[in-house]
Amino acid sequence: MTLFQSNWSKQLNIKYPIILAPMAGGITTSELVSAVSNAGGLGMIGAGYLNPEQTRQIIREIKERTSNPFGINLFVPEQGEVDEQSIVNAQTCLKKYREELHIQNQQPALSNQNNFKEQIQIVLEEEVPVCTFTFGLPSEQIVKKLKNAGIFIMGTATTVKEAQIIEKLGMDMIVAQGSEAGGHRGTFLEHPNKSLIGLMSLIPQIVDQVNIPVIAAGGIMDERGAFAARCLGAEGVQMGTAFLTCKESGAHEVHKESILNASEDEVVLTSAFSGKKARGINNRFIREMESAERSILPYPYQNTLTKDIRKAAGEQNNPDFMSMWSGQSPRLSKNISAAELIKQVVDGYEVLKERV
Amino acid sequence: MTLFQSNWSKQLNIKYPIILAPMAGGITTSELVSAVSNAGGLGMIGAGYLNPEQTRQIIREIKERTSNPFGINLFVPEQGEVDEQSIVNAQTCLKKYREELHIQNQQPALSNQNNFKEQIQIVLEEEVPVCTFTFGLPSEQIVKKLKNAGIFIMGTATTVKEAQIIEKLGMDMIVAQGSEAGGHRGTFLEHPNKSLIGLMSLIPQIVDQVNIPVIAAGGIMDERGAFAARCLGAEGVQMGTAFLTCKESGAHEVHKESILNASEDEVVLTSAFSGKKARGINNRFIREMESAERSILPYPYQNTLTKDIRKAAGEQNNPDFMSMWSGQSPRLSKNISAAELIKQVVDGYEVLKERV
Repeated sequence: MTLFQSNWSKQLNIKYPIILAPMAGGITTSELVSAVSNAGGLGMIGAGYLNPEQTRQIIREIKERTSNPFGINLFVPEQGEVDEQSIVNAQTCLKKYREELHIQNQQPALSNQNNFKEQIQIVLEEEVPVCTFTFGLPSEQIVKKLKNAGIFIMGTATTVKEAQIIEKLGMDMIVAQGSEAGGHRGTFLEHPNKSLIGLMSLIPQIVDQVNIPVIAAGGIMDERGAFAARCLGAEGVQMGTAFLTCKESGAHEVHKESILNASEDEVVLTSAFSGKKARGINNRFIREMESAERSILPYPYQNTLTKDIRKAAGEQNNPDFMSMWSGQSPRLSKNISAAELIKQVVDGYEVLKERV
Repeated sequence: MTLFQSNWSKQLNIKYPIILAPMAGGITTSELVSAVSNAGGLGMIGAGYLNPEQTRQIIREIKERTSNPFGINLFVPEQGEVDEQSIVNAQTCLKKYREELHIQNQQPALSNQNNFKEQIQIVLEEEVPVCTFTFGLPSEQIVKKLKNAGIFIMGTATTVKEAQIIEKLGMDMIVAQGSEAGGHRGTFLEHPNKSLIGLMSLIPQIVDQVNIPVIAAGGIMDERGAFAARCLGAEGVQMGTAFLTCKESGAHEVHKESILNASEDEVVLTSAFSGKKARGINNRFIREMESAERSILPYPYQNTLTKDIRKAAGEQNNPDFMSMWSGQSPRLSKNISAAELIKQVVDGYEVLKERV
């Protein structure tokens, strides 16, 4: 038997307990998701920013590319309002960047609209095998609906308390997100600054307190991380940055290149892009917004507000204003195919096992 | 052969590559240091705050208690001045706490005095087998002197660049301090906020770039952490919090109890006590000083300034004002003997090895 096997992966008929992190924003293309599933891992769609039509479309594209199980990640909608003055302040703060990037419409509309309910309905109709949640928890009613439909469900935890709540809600598995992880913090109980716990501490403390399987996420790039996660008590790994730089990923080429050339101390936490703490490669926008922290709106408002800036930066290949999410291990990134990455982890794991 | 063996531990004639973190401030008593060395690990004195007489005394006490190798950690002196107004602000900010704790002398003297040179001389005279450094690097001249005397030397790194500098300086080994670690950040190249890298990311990225052995430090409490560190490429572990709650540790009973009862999300980073970021259990002083961040002097001045407050809090068993350093894994702490802790790690390692 290659690599470690777990009950959950046997149950889902997945060869290796390697999960593609559901990176939102166009990174998890149907090519990438199906490549991971076809190579024996679990491909995941980052559907947080997709509308219902896009959600259904990518699910159907993936079904055409693979007959293996895959999954989808949804953002649980957040409450919260912002007042007019805060919006004015935030717009004023971003004005100079819009000008620099020659963005025509200077006042994008703000909305807290989300497609969560419609997406749940699509997941049920399309019988997506796995559904995971970030930024919070679905209602008990939704959990029951999905479980009755035979869908395997997971939540994201950054502390022991969050993991215990996920278990209590009746979910099947927990993704434990360490402080090393790239992209948005999945924290939902506390302020995201208060729960930056490294995997070395997070995994053993969670597995001691819950009875459902725990998956390690954050900074894992190769067989060393996969084996270490296993030693700590995890029953699988979720890898984001490692897949982001792969050939099939939809990440911007500038984003991929930035990670491939970055060192670990260039990766920082910022709320400048979305209003919620996320980890990525440091750039001018992050640096300059540090001194304007009070002009940053809460998620999801800030995210809506910076959308045109990020889009224009991408079109202009300008890394100064792109959100280049990355975990803390960019030095271990490679530009290979997803299948090759999985093969290297699996083969490397066997070699490492003989050595330690 | 039990546990993993490394060339460095064979060279030093140490049975297990388990190092007692050199926790300063009276925690690493001669009882604790000798207990670790007698149990087959490497006991370390945290001598950062000791004067020359105290330094020599504890070395001699340990020599009476063990014939096995042990080591000592020194703080590399820091430059930096503070102006009169900043001192007045800092004193004003702390005044209410002095009153609350009934401290008589309201204006402790400030000094940046340190005993580094005298301590180096004592290490040479007493032929201490291992000498490690935190907060910076000794001069090339000191490195040569120690190496010529056959003393094994290590530096503390929190990034790849710091590790590379330590190797270039001719040191024998690197302690890689992950963001999980309790107590002070050992960062010396960058701002301590910028190099909070979890061990899952830090270890593989360092071992890929240096040729000397790397020891993992931060959040490691048991065989799971030790094995995971080994998988990531470390050739040993340094454990602090795990030994802090042991019977022989000189930590305040209130400090031990706080760790034994803490959860991982109560552990925070603060510079309130010393002017340098350090990780410990959250309390009233840390919370209240968050809004007075501008009144915190740089290290070592703030440390001198809060010394009487911490001392009075200790005498009054008042956890509100004690610096209760802890790593991110307090849920895994135990109140056992140091020998029992080492035995559990070693025995557990063998069991785990069969299981993964």
